[in-house]
Amino acid sequence: MRIKNELALEELFELCDKRLKNVFANYLLDIPSIELRDAMEYTLSNGGKHLRPMLIYATGHIFGATWDDLDIPASSVELIHTYSLIHDDLPAMDDADLRRGKPSCHKVYGEGMAILTGDALHTLAMQIIAAHPASLPAAKRIQMLGVLSQACGPYGMAAGQALDIAIMHEDTVSIPLLNDIYRLKTGRLFSACIELGRLASTDDDEFNQEALAVFSDRIGLAFQIQDDILDIETNTELLGKQQGTDLKNNKITYPKLAGLGEAKAKVNSLYEEAFAAIHHFGNKALLLRELAESMLKRRK
Amino acid sequence: MRIKNELALEELFELCDKRLKNVFANYLLDIPSIELRDAMEYTLSNGGKHLRPMLIYATGHIFGATWDDLDIPASSVELIHTYSLIHDDLPAMDDADLRRGKPSCHKVYGEGMAILTGDALHTLAMQIIAAHPASLPAAKRIQMLGVLSQACGPYGMAAGQALDIAIMHEDTVSIPLLNDIYRLKTGRLFSACIELGRLASTDDDEFNQEALAVFSDRIGLAFQIQDDILDIETNTELLGKQQGTDLKNNKITYPKLAGLGEAKAKVNSLYEEAFAAIHHFGNKALLLRELAESMLKRRK
Repeated sequence: MRIKNELALEELFELCDKRLKNVFANYLLDIPSIELRDAMEYTLSNGGKHLRPMLIYATGHIFGATWDDLDIPASSVELIHTYSLIHDDLPAMDDADLRRGKPSCHKVYGEGMAILTGDALHTLAMQIIAAHPASLPAAKRIQMLGVLSQACGPYGMAAGQALDIAIMHEDTVSIPLLNDIYRLKTGRLFSACIELGRLASTDDDEFNQEALAVFSDRIGLAFQIQDDILDIETNTELLGKQQGTDLKNNKITYPKLAGLGEAKAKVNSLYEEAFAAIHHFGNKALLLRELAESMLKRRK
Repeated sequence: MRIKNELALEELFELCDKRLKNVFANYLLDIPSIELRDAMEYTLSNGGKHLRPMLIYATGHIFGATWDDLDIPASSVELIHTYSLIHDDLPAMDDADLRRGKPSCHKVYGEGMAILTGDALHTLAMQIIAAHPASLPAAKRIQMLGVLSQACGPYGMAAGQALDIAIMHEDTVSIPLLNDIYRLKTGRLFSACIELGRLASTDDDEFNQEALAVFSDRIGLAFQIQDDILDIETNTELLGKQQGTDLKNNKITYPKLAGLGEAKAKVNSLYEEAFAAIHHFGNKALLLRELAESMLKRRK
């Protein structure tokens, strides 16, 4: 079934949440360690915003993909994102006790099990694309795994996080370097979502690919700067994680380097560029535009 | 080029070591974080036995595969194995300061970077199969990624390690349960090696698959029991890691449950079953048999 054009954002979220739950339930069922399965279930079901899978559904929508085509890449990206949060929250990394308003994985299951839970979600993300029953041909699935691993491994997210750790020993860094780190740490996975949504569809073309690459680059970078701003401005209860963690960890952030006002202006200008890049898609990109607008306005 | 039948085991090791180094060098070159790249290089180049990739080359040899066909699956499995060692050695897991006679990854690069290094190697293992230049068709590569992720994720290695943590709270467990855990923790990846070697070749058949499944199951289980025995009998210098770690961590092991003599007898009988399973392969399996014999006799 194709995704309806007039779908409201709230409906997209509800449907996305339901579809991810179905995929996860299917793949978690027979895991031979109950503790591991519980810990995976705990972190997957604790109320994320599902922004990354929603980006996949909204992009696939532009190209006439069906819900079924998009379920596996959408679930895969959510698994990668969740694994990265579990490892990020560990004492040796950001040392965060709270995630989405609940105790983080290692606070409930212990550090060793949290490391393994992240590892297991990481592998599962690849496994569900490799095992994907039928609808997409092997060549498309290999392409998807290429896009995903490029985005989350040592050429993407993992490198961004390593650079994040490395600059903790610096007094300051240049804004262009910080932008590069943010693109690796956060932007690449956003770009992968857009690319996966396009790949799952059949009527993709080169012209769209370029426009979508600009769009996803800008919202990815903006998203990470917004995270810095929210860490300063939004209280713990609304944020669902401890406010002021960056300050506590003495982190170099965009607002710290450029000032809070400049950081906010940067977010706005990045979104302007993002919207301009997909302007010519017209009504076909209604859902993607609405999703980006909600991301621009997010308070958590 | 096909693998020569009369190749000695030492030559196989030398060639394997050289070929893995080439693949790794190629993929490590452009990683955007120097610290991450260094830590990946450090752990990949610290003199492992390369048993898992050698199993792939020796199995592919039976089916007439070329070196080129086997390089990528062999490298991929070595990346998975190395990532799992880094995470295993972390203070929250086995808390091991030494690995292959050198300080373990977190002792050199810190815990946060060690977690990321493991994560990066984990993704890279999948990435190199997805990005594999050409020689294998997409359908084969998807099958390989399915085999690999099934073996190392929540249905294999990660589950085995989670069960390992879970039984630390038990006074004792049954031997059959411990066997199941060992099969998940260690055996599944050995079986995947054999399966990947066969998949990379063109003249595989069902009959061989079954014989090889028995072979790999038995050597995989035996390998983990041997690890338990070596932890008791081999000194730290030869072992390259701290002797007596299991005892220190109060681990339930095969010798602890069944006695040291019984554990050794079990290893021998498992190898007998393994050799019997591939007996009918005759001279074609010379290399694989020699490799298994060297594993049976290993002192580290």
